[in-house]
Amino acid sequence: MKHLGIAIMFIASLCCAQTADTFQPSATNVWGAEYPRVDNEGRVQVRIKAPDASKVKLNFWSGPKLDMVKQPDGLWTVTTPPLVPGLHYYTINIDGAEVSDLNTHAFFGGTKEASAVEVPEPGSTYYSIQDVPHGQVREVWYNSKVTGTWRHALVYLPPKYDTQNRVRYPVLYLQHGAGEDETGWVRQGHANFILDNLIASKTCKPMIIVMAYGYARRAGQAAPDLTGKPFGSPEMLKAMQDMAAAFEDDVTQVLIPYIDATFRTLSDRDHRAMAGLSMGGMQTFQITLDHLDLFSYIGGFSGAGGMLVLGDRKLDPKTDYNGVFGDPAAFAKKVHLLWIGVGTQEPERMRAGLQRLHTSLQEADIQHVFYESPGTDHEWQTWRRDLKDFAPRLFNIGEVK
Amino acid sequence: MKHLGIAIMFIASLCCAQTADTFQPSATNVWGAEYPRVDNEGRVQVRIKAPDASKVKLNFWSGPKLDMVKQPDGLWTVTTPPLVPGLHYYTINIDGAEVSDLNTHAFFGGTKEASAVEVPEPGSTYYSIQDVPHGQVREVWYNSKVTGTWRHALVYLPPKYDTQNRVRYPVLYLQHGAGEDETGWVRQGHANFILDNLIASKTCKPMIIVMAYGYARRAGQAAPDLTGKPFGSPEMLKAMQDMAAAFEDDVTQVLIPYIDATFRTLSDRDHRAMAGLSMGGMQTFQITLDHLDLFSYIGGFSGAGGMLVLGDRKLDPKTDYNGVFGDPAAFAKKVHLLWIGVGTQEPERMRAGLQRLHTSLQEADIQHVFYESPGTDHEWQTWRRDLKDFAPRLFNIGEVK
Repeated sequence: MKHLGIAIMFIASLCCAQTADTFQPSATNVWGAEYPRVDNEGRVQVRIKAPDASKVKLNFWSGPKLDMVKQPDGLWTVTTPPLVPGLHYYTINIDGAEVSDLNTHAFFGGTKEASAVEVPEPGSTYYSIQDVPHGQVREVWYNSKVTGTWRHALVYLPPKYDTQNRVRYPVLYLQHGAGEDETGWVRQGHANFILDNLIASKTCKPMIIVMAYGYARRAGQAAPDLTGKPFGSPEMLKAMQDMAAAFEDDVTQVLIPYIDATFRTLSDRDHRAMAGLSMGGMQTFQITLDHLDLFSYIGGFSGAGGMLVLGDRKLDPKTDYNGVFGDPAAFAKKVHLLWIGVGTQEPERMRAGLQRLHTSLQEADIQHVFYESPGTDHEWQTWRRDLKDFAPRLFNIGEVK
Repeated sequence: MKHLGIAIMFIASLCCAQTADTFQPSATNVWGAEYPRVDNEGRVQVRIKAPDASKVKLNFWSGPKLDMVKQPDGLWTVTTPPLVPGLHYYTINIDGAEVSDLNTHAFFGGTKEASAVEVPEPGSTYYSIQDVPHGQVREVWYNSKVTGTWRHALVYLPPKYDTQNRVRYPVLYLQHGAGEDETGWVRQGHANFILDNLIASKTCKPMIIVMAYGYARRAGQAAPDLTGKPFGSPEMLKAMQDMAAAFEDDVTQVLIPYIDATFRTLSDRDHRAMAGLSMGGMQTFQITLDHLDLFSYIGGFSGAGGMLVLGDRKLDPKTDYNGVFGDPAAFAKKVHLLWIGVGTQEPERMRAGLQRLHTSLQEADIQHVFYESPGTDHEWQTWRRDLKDFAPRLFNIGEVK
């Protein structure tokens, strides 16, 4: 049978792991796949079978774009220069077709099930599974009156949630980036392992993390007709604002009440945080600063401040975000943490925008944390580090450290 | 920014859903993808951009294999004849490279993240999300002393598990097929929605479902060297037996104790079932019939009986499976349900093998259920129907129906 044959292929694949150099299969590979593989210097070798193709290219989204070389056996291969540690999305272009590499598991990014390779960070165990108590990630579905659809979210519950069943927990809402979805923080980010490890070492408080689907359109609202409308046109900006507003209503009117009704949460603002990466950071700023009655901890990971960051003007504390930055003392009393992070190798526009926001906040006397991830780009290693720095700062209010 | 651009692409994609015929985007598509699409007759249209390719083929694994046709705009398209309802795996071959279609979400099958299209079954709501109480699917990791590795499993907990926190539940262990993994029963099979709907209509008992990773190799055991060993060679059969035995020990010595320690289970044999599809059905027969001290309900979905089904001989009740079928009365007392299913359109070898097992069991006076899924192949629609028929028969022992 075909399926029996697959089981045999699997067994056969277990016998070929010998190589003379330091290349090892990527942790992201499907079983038995030898490629892509990574050596001790962070070089990545990719291989794909395309015997009749005339041109094959490898495209790391935040990394090298390389022509692959055809071997006599119809396999195309290439070796990259050393890459920075972390998870790197890539696709392969075969005669003009952009495809994934079926040797790796799929990671939802760029609105597609992309391939990715994991370059290990020497000595870093904080985002891998360790022999410590583990929380559980749950899949939940909630019926949103805002969007008129069933919406899917992942919820991390800390170790002992099931056994200490009178304890209530604070909640971090943690959002993915544009082109990704609610699965990103677990599959790509390993947020569950990061929290397991931080909680085990008593570096952060046990908490619930809610990872929602970050796109929304109001029930009954027609899809915008953007045919012929240029990038940045008023119609397109209106469509983006509509989507952001619908998501804001979904989070504040449906998701938060659903989570508080479903799990043993501490449901006051002192025990609710929100953070997100890239688009998720912009959503976080909008939602939390519109709703300081609901949130008291705020994190923007490689994304915060919306057009303030993407545009080129400075923050106006008196008018931006309903003027919440106009009274530093009042802000500090309400917001226990304002946290902004960026990788030092991110694109100039993002880096400069966040630096400018940081400077604006300093000039406005707004207490905040500005974190720079050394050597990393607009990629998941930056955001893993962000979460590792951010989570321990949550829910400590009133405590002597 | 690149990611802002993706958000805009998403919005722009919402505006183009008008078609004159009955084609609709497949439920498996990523957001905004118009293709693949399905019409009211079950015809499927696939489209992929490959402007410089010279040959592109569409390959439904249990369905048509078709040459795609290049359009002037570099898009290749094809329309299939009507397909039977259900989820159909497919890949696309571009100049000799087997790839997925990035327009659909990825479904792990055939040891790869494959594409799939969903052909709706008119009137069937049993495997889709409904406005009924929903259970939750949890991700768990357990450290296996058998394999020496962390192993990942998904666990469905029925509605009210969290709120009625003195209630204990029976457990169904439910296995995927060869080439698939522990995610298959939720992602492809919708086992969670099937159970939600059956439980809501009081058609089946609330139960826990454990979906484990069905491959295993013993800690410290070298990978078998099968170089040059032909299909069916003694070395290959030995390797398969080793894998099956390691998985059996992992389930019975590690997974079951872990589940019983972690969740509120009813942990006696009268409240433990096992079923699986294809390879998972063979594993189920081996594991349950070796361990009738642990299991009392047994299901083989398009797979049961191992070489009995794949080979060409009949069951010998006196010797096969430790002779458990030799005493029908004793077997009926121990095993509350023996259930075998097959699709009427499955490959002849599987269909005939299961029919022969059914006949053998009849001749041996072994009470059992033999279920045939009309018109379906060795695919998920068969297994969804199997679960819908199987689950209501579980855990009713001692009740007057």
